[in-house]
Amino acid sequence: MSFLDQISEPTLLLNEQIARTNIRRMAEKAGRHNVRLRPHFKTHQSWQVGEWFREEGVTAITVSSVKMAQYFARHGWQDITVAFPLNRRQLPQITELAQQITLNITITSADDVVFLREQLSTPVNIWVKADTGYGRTGIRTEDTAALDAVLQELAQTPQHPFLGFLAHAGHTYKARNHESIAAIHHETLEKMRSLKERYAGTWPHLQLSVGDTPSCSVMEDFSGMDEIRPGNFVFYDLMQHLIGSCRLQDIAVAVACPVVALHPERNEVILYGGAVHFSKDALPQADGSVIFGLVVSLTENGWGAPLPDTAVVSLSQEHGVVRTSPKIFSQFKVGELVGVLPVHSCLTADLMKGYLTLAGERLEHLSAPV
Amino acid sequence: MSFLDQISEPTLLLNEQIARTNIRRMAEKAGRHNVRLRPHFKTHQSWQVGEWFREEGVTAITVSSVKMAQYFARHGWQDITVAFPLNRRQLPQITELAQQITLNITITSADDVVFLREQLSTPVNIWVKADTGYGRTGIRTEDTAALDAVLQELAQTPQHPFLGFLAHAGHTYKARNHESIAAIHHETLEKMRSLKERYAGTWPHLQLSVGDTPSCSVMEDFSGMDEIRPGNFVFYDLMQHLIGSCRLQDIAVAVACPVVALHPERNEVILYGGAVHFSKDALPQADGSVIFGLVVSLTENGWGAPLPDTAVVSLSQEHGVVRTSPKIFSQFKVGELVGVLPVHSCLTADLMKGYLTLAGERLEHLSAPV
Repeated sequence: MSFLDQISEPTLLLNEQIARTNIRRMAEKAGRHNVRLRPHFKTHQSWQVGEWFREEGVTAITVSSVKMAQYFARHGWQDITVAFPLNRRQLPQITELAQQITLNITITSADDVVFLREQLSTPVNIWVKADTGYGRTGIRTEDTAALDAVLQELAQTPQHPFLGFLAHAGHTYKARNHESIAAIHHETLEKMRSLKERYAGTWPHLQLSVGDTPSCSVMEDFSGMDEIRPGNFVFYDLMQHLIGSCRLQDIAVAVACPVVALHPERNEVILYGGAVHFSKDALPQADGSVIFGLVVSLTENGWGAPLPDTAVVSLSQEHGVVRTSPKIFSQFKVGELVGVLPVHSCLTADLMKGYLTLAGERLEHLSAPV
Repeated sequence: MSFLDQISEPTLLLNEQIARTNIRRMAEKAGRHNVRLRPHFKTHQSWQVGEWFREEGVTAITVSSVKMAQYFARHGWQDITVAFPLNRRQLPQITELAQQITLNITITSADDVVFLREQLSTPVNIWVKADTGYGRTGIRTEDTAALDAVLQELAQTPQHPFLGFLAHAGHTYKARNHESIAAIHHETLEKMRSLKERYAGTWPHLQLSVGDTPSCSVMEDFSGMDEIRPGNFVFYDLMQHLIGSCRLQDIAVAVACPVVALHPERNEVILYGGAVHFSKDALPQADGSVIFGLVVSLTENGWGAPLPDTAVVSLSQEHGVVRTSPKIFSQFKVGELVGVLPVHSCLTADLMKGYLTLAGERLEHLSAPV
């Protein structure tokens, strides 16, 4: 009996072999460029998937919340960066964690440093969040007055060692080819190196941390960087494929969805699988429309290339609507399963709250720890 | 100490008084029009909120998945409609539920009826899903050949009683005023009544079930209908406000979010609160942009009107970016909480996995049953 026979509801399938290959490729690239791979675990949020990284020599990780840090600390990770602006309301949790592991906190202002100096007695390491052009948060690398002020406070806070500058060039997500990724990446590296030049006299051990999935996937120049922090690459998804970070066959997850209704008059198929399974993140199409996933046939060995002329064109809470061609339509049968490659695997994994590998093994997700 | 002092992470606040008022108003409207209120519980997915409906005399409910039906059956609900196309892969769960409660199943084809006749020995009641113009799923009310075929199969399936026709006029969600809602609503009623006329000779007890939140909120004509099934109205949200279903002060939920960073140079505020808390459902603005929430000040008594010129303008996995005016900007302080009224409360509640009432009581959500 295939593991597919046991699936009755939307289920997130994980091809372990593809994910492990993605991890190994990134670990080898980091090794080749002599940078530390501190992968972001917000994509998978699973201690079991974390073990696959450990087997590739990874010992330090990134997370995006204190809760995620607590979870991975429970599962043996001893060096964790919370790459999210310091949430002062979680001081008790931060204190407790800092007593257990090497905890690296990200700050975005001189005030944050004062807060940690005055309120946190247990040592943490401090990353200063630098904004290299993404414009979400962090201190703009051009804003030397603000940066000087932060580093002056850090100089008065020896109990919390200053690690260096951390940036996320999230604007690569707007890129659609190698050249655009390269332009953003090189500008980020240059801005980060200029920070090091400015402050290395006072802080000779200052480190630089970068690492979005597009840049880390396609670039081969990381000169001057100390670590990279990509996350999404473990699974990839349709957005990364659109950006140019991966091939479709590098996508390691697909949502298995039961077919529940057929509408031959408009070549539409209704899936049990909606916004509460995929998220509403949409993939822009050339014609201005958006799609919410591509459809693949499932076998017990996984899935193949997306079906041509076929996409998830709308989502409501539990329904997914697939539009296809008359020719492909006949392949859909009510009661059978199809797979859907997600637009944004991080959000899909967060919603699905667990994985089923092709070997039939259930892996947990932090959203629903076993 | 205020309950707000205990909040350190994004938390879904529920104003019980507003929700109860929303429930009572709808129950009174149903009573006035002599239709059964069979509320959709997919919005709140909480047995505790369910009790507030019970106190208003509600005894029959709607859900959108078998899992939700199981959950509410465990909490004492004895008459449940699964308003989602029959998922044949859940036959064992359906069988088990049908042995415990009055279970009403929605079918979309003659094949579905054959399947139930041949595969399901425990009786269920059957709703035939009618499409009155939404175009998602169900049989178009004009497609009398398909409807005749379904009813012929039902005539041969006396073990599973035919209840009648069920429609969801989801296209009211594209309305932006009372007139557009009214046009869709009246067309739906007319189409549903025509079905009853066509089949009442053979099926004199045939019922009609309709009920999206916009129509049920603003319409006062339900002639010929037997029941209404609105769901979202228990909480409402910014989308319903845009449609015209509610006032801003009828919105019963807000996400309390810690402020984690300030960017005075662009009047932007970074919240701990992102796509994994709100969902990516966006509210279109007059200028073609979209927003992901409106911001309110929080007190221990709840929240007031949204801050002027202030909105959540972008979301990443855990970050929310608020853009505001220079004047309002000064009200935001790192480490304090603000509230965010969600665009789509159903998806936000699904992601938040639980509620905190203004009395400090935690209520569960099916996504994370206690």
